[in-house]
Amino acid sequence: MTDIATRVYNHKWKIDPIVRSLLDTDFYKLLMAQTIFRRQRDTRVTFSILNRSKDIRLADLVEESALREQLDHARSLRLTRGESTWLRGNMFYGKRQMFAPEFIEWLEGFQLPAYDLRVRDGQYELEFDGPWLETTFWEIPALAILNELRSRAVLAAMGKFELQVLYARAMTRVWEKVQRLKALPGLQIADFGTRRRHGFLWQDWCVQAMIEGLGDAFTGTSNCLIAMRREVEAVGTNAHELPMVYAALADSDAELAAAPYQVLRDWQEDYEGNLLIILPDTYGTTHFLAAAPSWVSSWTGIRVDSKDPIEGGEEAIRWWRERGEDPRKKLAIFSDALDVTAIERIHYHFAGRMRFGFGWGTLLTNDFRGFAPDGALDPISIVCKVVSANGRPAVKLSDNPAKAMGPAAEVERYKRVFELEERAERPVLV
Amino acid sequence: MTDIATRVYNHKWKIDPIVRSLLDTDFYKLLMAQTIFRRQRDTRVTFSILNRSKDIRLADLVEESALREQLDHARSLRLTRGESTWLRGNMFYGKRQMFAPEFIEWLEGFQLPAYDLRVRDGQYELEFDGPWLETTFWEIPALAILNELRSRAVLAAMGKFELQVLYARAMTRVWEKVQRLKALPGLQIADFGTRRRHGFLWQDWCVQAMIEGLGDAFTGTSNCLIAMRREVEAVGTNAHELPMVYAALADSDAELAAAPYQVLRDWQEDYEGNLLIILPDTYGTTHFLAAAPSWVSSWTGIRVDSKDPIEGGEEAIRWWRERGEDPRKKLAIFSDALDVTAIERIHYHFAGRMRFGFGWGTLLTNDFRGFAPDGALDPISIVCKVVSANGRPAVKLSDNPAKAMGPAAEVERYKRVFELEERAERPVLV
Repeated sequence: MTDIATRVYNHKWKIDPIVRSLLDTDFYKLLMAQTIFRRQRDTRVTFSILNRSKDIRLADLVEESALREQLDHARSLRLTRGESTWLRGNMFYGKRQMFAPEFIEWLEGFQLPAYDLRVRDGQYELEFDGPWLETTFWEIPALAILNELRSRAVLAAMGKFELQVLYARAMTRVWEKVQRLKALPGLQIADFGTRRRHGFLWQDWCVQAMIEGLGDAFTGTSNCLIAMRREVEAVGTNAHELPMVYAALADSDAELAAAPYQVLRDWQEDYEGNLLIILPDTYGTTHFLAAAPSWVSSWTGIRVDSKDPIEGGEEAIRWWRERGEDPRKKLAIFSDALDVTAIERIHYHFAGRMRFGFGWGTLLTNDFRGFAPDGALDPISIVCKVVSANGRPAVKLSDNPAKAMGPAAEVERYKRVFELEERAERPVLV
Repeated sequence: MTDIATRVYNHKWKIDPIVRSLLDTDFYKLLMAQTIFRRQRDTRVTFSILNRSKDIRLADLVEESALREQLDHARSLRLTRGESTWLRGNMFYGKRQMFAPEFIEWLEGFQLPAYDLRVRDGQYELEFDGPWLETTFWEIPALAILNELRSRAVLAAMGKFELQVLYARAMTRVWEKVQRLKALPGLQIADFGTRRRHGFLWQDWCVQAMIEGLGDAFTGTSNCLIAMRREVEAVGTNAHELPMVYAALADSDAELAAAPYQVLRDWQEDYEGNLLIILPDTYGTTHFLAAAPSWVSSWTGIRVDSKDPIEGGEEAIRWWRERGEDPRKKLAIFSDALDVTAIERIHYHFAGRMRFGFGWGTLLTNDFRGFAPDGALDPISIVCKVVSANGRPAVKLSDNPAKAMGPAAEVERYKRVFELEERAERPVLV
């Protein structure tokens, strides 16, 4: 029995929007936005998309008009009444009223700002320039749109049966991963896969798989919309953009050296508990920890991102011990290019030595590796990063030189200020 | 957008019928029925269900009322106008009008005869007694109903997400098998999986997977309804019931010894070409071939069923050579408990030495092994066999003593008449 109304409705869509809600973004964007709202309302920041997978020529795969339609649709979105109610009424990290009424009022009037799109050498040059408070909101939807448009371009050539088999295989793969994770005693794992997801519906399915398969070991999703709809925790803390902007705004080398700690000083005025997670790798973890003021070691935990996870975790444990802290009361969050084998290795390595959790991203929500010829659905490494703040260039060094960004002269200056030694590059997977 | 009408319609079903068409049966049933229609209209034959998987207590799993509802629903079916048109107009095995108008007229008035159902020791005793021409039609729907009711009993305890993952895994498994088969040059394979299928919709999906994945290597399905709907070949030839009934009706040992060849003599009056496939194992392949009249070796091929397939194929090649036939012009059909590894082994063993094809059954349409706790969805070995004809007991010996059936004294007599030596049992998988 074909429902003619449904069929006609489906066929009259002008576009199939990828981002349908302002809450289809990562929770830490809201946390950071509130901090920016309070302290940096006049700061202008430019974000720029960078596709590190140069051989994937996105502008050849995805029509510019289709990309513009999706970006324009995202710009048309406003916070809905129900979404606003959820932000006001929901408990986040065990706390009510995480967001101040004046911030939510501002958010209710918010729309994504203008974008600047050009094509060069088969790649999209996509930039967002404007008040930091506004441009920061583009990162996640812009990446999700690019990734899903690329998936759709590949899926467009497939027949109905082929698609069914594709998703059956993908579901089987995720479910087998979840079953392996289930075997890890005391596991704590969250979905961090919004930006690089295969598609929105797929991320939503992956979250359901985690809910069904992991029970309490699943600690939540970074995606606010999915957290709201599936009634699970919204999770996340803060990102490199905070120290990058603070650093870019510094007027002297001394201010630059102090900038990453100023971020934490501001953050702990706004948040507490499990939201006090240091992200130490923006300009090199080792120096960051060594030079950190004493109050920093009282924070709840550390996110280990661009460094080899075993090395990064061991470094955190050593540091806590040196600072007189008990690592078993501290929390490490691992979040870089994780898949099940790495999670198992990290889990058994650190079991009992500290508290830790995983933020599982791309290889949860976009592991279609090998499911299309020539790896056409394999995830790509694409990021949206701060390139300047109030006209000054932004720099990221990270623990992996392959992830360094910024003008060469500034990179050298930062290396000097943050006493960064030469390190070996690690391949950037996703 | 929920379509309320569809939803209400779905929820007002009294039962969800398993068999919805008289054509939801194996093609060889129609071929055999036409032969019975012409020669054995007065013969009465009793069929009986035998569950060889004793540890699966079907009567504990499946409600008797549910079984009766399904059997009664099957009895309510009549050949539809479109089905009759297809039988009259379709080309089978390259031939038009395979079925005589008088046989189709009879079939248009046919309904499944009464059944006799009792429960003993956790098992259903299900018998069909009446004219052979009628009772023969119960074999496939009765088995399909029992198998699907058992699947449904297990599925009833699963949630929506669990079911989705279950079918994703099953699809992935079938698709991976199909991909492996695709690598076999010159493969010829058909679906023989109606009777032991997980369910009707699942068999239909498996056939689509074969169509999509194998192209010309897929030679068709034994299921008439699916062949009609998917517009592929309906395939099959004949089964053990023919020699079993002919043998039971024999009035002397001499007639008994001649009975299996009389089956072929009658059959070749009705059919030709690729329908001339000897099924030699009913009372032991070796004796059957050695004692066969000279005209038997001119038949197109041999079905290797209960014997080890390599051994059975080699025996066929030797026999053709002894009879002055060129094995490369002959056809062997392998059909017993096949899965991909066995198919590959047989394929590479016989490649270039004779023509051969595969009738893939249970492990195509019901391979849910390991997908439910305690193997609750693993296929079971259940058959529907002739137990008597005109009141005389029927006997089957086969090449595998584990499959022998009939009263002990009769079995001994048959062994003597067919000069059957003691042989080792092979485990009956499915």
